[in-house]
Amino acid sequence: MKLTILFGGASFEHEISIVSAITIKEKLASFDLTFIFCDTDHSFYLIDTSKMKAKTFSSGEHKKMPQLTLEKGCFMQKGMFSKSEYKSVVLNLIHGADGEDGTVAALLDFYGVDYIGPRKDACTFSYDKRYTKYLCDAIGVKSVKYEVLHKNEAANIETPYPIIIKPSRLGSSIGVSIVKEESELDYALDVAFEFDSTVIVEPFLEGVKEYNLAGYYAQNKMHFSIVEEPHKEEFLDFEKKYMDFSRSEQVLSANIEEELTARLKSNFQRVYSGLFEGALIRCDFFVYNDEVLLNEINPIPGSMANYLFEDFIQAIESLSQSLPKREQIKTNYEYIHSISKAKGK
Amino acid sequence: MKLTILFGGASFEHEISIVSAITIKEKLASFDLTFIFCDTDHSFYLIDTSKMKAKTFSSGEHKKMPQLTLEKGCFMQKGMFSKSEYKSVVLNLIHGADGEDGTVAALLDFYGVDYIGPRKDACTFSYDKRYTKYLCDAIGVKSVKYEVLHKNEAANIETPYPIIIKPSRLGSSIGVSIVKEESELDYALDVAFEFDSTVIVEPFLEGVKEYNLAGYYAQNKMHFSIVEEPHKEEFLDFEKKYMDFSRSEQVLSANIEEELTARLKSNFQRVYSGLFEGALIRCDFFVYNDEVLLNEINPIPGSMANYLFEDFIQAIESLSQSLPKREQIKTNYEYIHSISKAKGK
Repeated sequence: MKLTILFGGASFEHEISIVSAITIKEKLASFDLTFIFCDTDHSFYLIDTSKMKAKTFSSGEHKKMPQLTLEKGCFMQKGMFSKSEYKSVVLNLIHGADGEDGTVAALLDFYGVDYIGPRKDACTFSYDKRYTKYLCDAIGVKSVKYEVLHKNEAANIETPYPIIIKPSRLGSSIGVSIVKEESELDYALDVAFEFDSTVIVEPFLEGVKEYNLAGYYAQNKMHFSIVEEPHKEEFLDFEKKYMDFSRSEQVLSANIEEELTARLKSNFQRVYSGLFEGALIRCDFFVYNDEVLLNEINPIPGSMANYLFEDFIQAIESLSQSLPKREQIKTNYEYIHSISKAKGK
Repeated sequence: MKLTILFGGASFEHEISIVSAITIKEKLASFDLTFIFCDTDHSFYLIDTSKMKAKTFSSGEHKKMPQLTLEKGCFMQKGMFSKSEYKSVVLNLIHGADGEDGTVAALLDFYGVDYIGPRKDACTFSYDKRYTKYLCDAIGVKSVKYEVLHKNEAANIETPYPIIIKPSRLGSSIGVSIVKEESELDYALDVAFEFDSTVIVEPFLEGVKEYNLAGYYAQNKMHFSIVEEPHKEEFLDFEKKYMDFSRSEQVLSANIEEELTARLKSNFQRVYSGLFEGALIRCDFFVYNDEVLLNEINPIPGSMANYLFEDFIQAIESLSQSLPKREQIKTNYEYIHSISKAKGK
């Protein structure tokens, strides 16, 4: 099948997206793939598939490739006397800002381009960790207790140490610190506030178990990946997570009871339903004191969490055939006519 | 000052937006205004200011006017041998879908066009009434109790009659019904589900007082309009609200205690802060049993609630000078370089 991989973006995770796209190229080698790169200045480039290497971008070589514009229903390459349309389902693989904050969703919706990826509201509730908490509270999914700090305001933290400090709106562990005692706090806050004007404080839960589960809705039902217990270190820093984005080898299922798997799936489905349709997402859960807690929603997981699926090709194919319909709104100017009459104009 | 009024949109409130723009033309007559119309097919047209009349659109005459495209930093008119840029702060006056759902915000952010109007996350929390409830619960602002119904699911309503049925995502009272007894329920649900796949059920509060308050953040502080007690009928239907969108005469302040005004402002500010910066919004409150309840957030109120401001021109001017800054993200490919080294590639 034809599929366009849209990657890059004006985001702290720009480079991660490049790594993700290179990995996807391998995993979907049987597809007819088009690669469209969104540069940090929001120019779109058509990338020669044989040049899908990190160096193409770090060297700036991509800037010599054809520029595209987003038009109704397609990306367009305009020459002096010709136009070429690139028209296929888009896989939104822009991590972080642009891709996960709702911008790309809005652009593709506005221009009528079909895409795999989270829709606008889904982005709001997953991109900003505060809003993920709002969602959890509203739909009855448990999550870790939290406090919110604002830049340039006194930090009156009530959570006892050790704590985790996270910028509200970044993924990939950028700007995240574990703070064991008060003396380390100021530095951790400085780091986090480098990246965002609001910061989340959570207790650092000793002995927590971590489980990742991916899934999507297609052909009228949910499809789940295996459950993975990720390698446990204090937490993955940016470089380690970065390597993570290039993962392509299928992993083994976590050795857990069926009952826990069922609880993870049920929490996943509660988060997903009515909000994430059209996207393949990964939810990262904690299990602590026998409670399942949602830690994070990755609405565009690194390399689409391909390594969690037994048949990743089938997953992308069936999802691309089950995308939410865009509503067509027509206007007949009936109200303007009737108001004009009422006003005698 | 120069200002571009962006109106229309692919929305059930398309016509309302036209009426709003015509009203704004009168109210901001001293400005250097450009009118850009977004048609229901998402084409942009530059509208001759002298043609800013409802008939221009209902007759289709606008389709003969110059088409524009959205480019980096501006709207662009492209001729055979020439280009003209339309580059000024945009007032997003598209009500309902496109304007209030975050689409226009994302487009203008992506293309780097400054605008007055709600940003993406602000849209999520105001466009869908469910998410307004999530927000209220999270930030400690009271609102009316509610239930959510989904299309094609059994309607097990626990709220006692009379109740109000509202489509989750529409403004301007479209699809809203008061249901006094069970026999009227099915019809009201059919109407509401015409417009949305989720529906909100609320108790119809007898004897509730209604107050509207508008405001915006500029020059490092909040600015509030007067408080209005809107004309009370059971509720405003679409045509009445429609007339409402063309209001241009300043109204009188509600005759209420200063203490209540202060409570309304304090609730408004809690909703606005950290979310609605860049926008002039109107919050519609209920007062019931001496409690202030948020009923609705209008992130792009009809004709910008001009009639609530003593100096509307000053409001728009100062807001346009206090718009949120867009973050510039640069990439130095530092991680790709270090990963490449680590991998020995």
